[in-house]
Amino acid sequence: MQISARNAIKGKVVKVDVGAVNATIKIEVEAPHTITATITKESVEELKITEGEEVMAIIKSSEVMVAKK
Amino acid sequence: MQISARNAIKGKVVKVDVGAVNATIKIEVEAPHTITATITKESVEELKITEGEEVMAIIKSSEVMVAKK
Amino acid sequence: MQISARNAIKGKVVKVDVGAVNATIKIEVEAPHTITATITKESVEELKITEGEEVMAIIKSSEVMVAKK
Amino acid sequence: MQISARNAIKGKVVKVDVGAVNATIKIEVEAPHTITATITKESVEELKITEGEEVMAIIKSSEVMVAKK
Amino acid sequence: MQISARNAIKGKVVKVDVGAVNATIKIEVEAPHTITATITKESVEELKITEGEEVMAIIKSSEVMVAKK
Amino acid sequence: MQISARNAIKGKVVKVDVGAVNATIKIEVEAPHTITATITKESVEELKITEGEEVMAIIKSSEVMVAKK
Repeated sequence: MQISARNAIKGKVVKVDVGAVNATIKIEVEAPHTITATITKESVEELKITEGEEVMAIIKSSEVMVAKK
Repeated sequence: MQISARNAIKGKVVKVDVGAVNATIKIEVEAPHTITATITKESVEELKITEGEEVMAIIKSSEVMVAKK
Repeated sequence: MQISARNAIKGKVVKVDVGAVNATIKIEVEAPHTITATITKESVEELKITEGEEVMAIIKSSEVMVAKK
Repeated sequence: MQISARNAIKGKVVKVDVGAVNATIKIEVEAPHTITATITKESVEELKITEGEEVMAIIKSSEVMVAKK
Repeated sequence: MQISARNAIKGKVVKVDVGAVNATIKIEVEAPHTITATITKESVEELKITEGEEVMAIIKSSEVMVAKK
Repeated sequence: MQISARNAIKGKVVKVDVGAVNATIKIEVEAPHTITATITKESVEELKITEGEEVMAIIKSSEVMVAKK
């Protein structure tokens, strides 16, 4: 299955915490990879985001899905 | 600033593509790191997600924010 | 109330599972309907998404809201 | 590939609208199916959501991904 | 229409910026109101979030819908 | 830290409700502020959203993060 989501990051499950309805999964990522972000033009200009600089990709855990081959 | 988002992944901007309203940013991540996912208990059971196994973290690019120190 | 969300899909509640903070709701959808997705131009090109072909709309349950008249 | 997202809805692409960075995809869904929503316990109580009643699943198009076999 | 989304914040449209596929809307909010966030237990503990303290609600613009009576 | 998310709304924590995996936080917002929404061009046209009119910003609580200085 191919999926339109731009980020498919390989890793190893290191923790599974199950609650009544939800669960938290921790995935250890070793290999280098590329993350794609879609943000507003306004924020690119305001933060002066340019190629070559150090940034952080910020992702709420509720936006991360887990897939298995 | 501390933020509740569980994923703050360091990397280098390698591409900035600006459209009329949105922009796509590519971030190269070198260092190993941990990704946290919050998914349903149902999906943990259905996919039989267990510690130690290889998985993929799937993230739509529109859910990724960019931050700078 | 009109809402900008493009997907308002009618159905019948068949299951309500309540946890400490969250709840999972199952909604049975009978009638045909159209789903709108906003994805990146890059993914349209990479997956070669074209009119007439069979695809799947993938939606994390935490992105689905429930509304009542 | 199995994915933790609870909603994988089959349909046919009927429209592809490509912009500078994003694209809008319309998918026609014929077959009956079940939609899973994760909402707060508070909203279940406030809206008095109960099994058997008619509701609408509301989903922002930017939360819908597209997948192909 | 009642909706499970916990945040329905009244305001006045002050800017509408339309692109090829998406649009950015600015809404001026005058009246005091309450915002509800659902975050992980882990982040509450790590950030030591307690009642009475000053915080910021951080919301990506692609997660905000617009509704009209 | 600067972040690309367009909405950073100051307020006071008035309630913290912790479950097994997630927690619900209520934040009282006093000061006037601007909310930015990114929606589809299609919805702007369908809802005829124009400058000067009263609307509601609708936000699912699972899309709201909390930050502290």
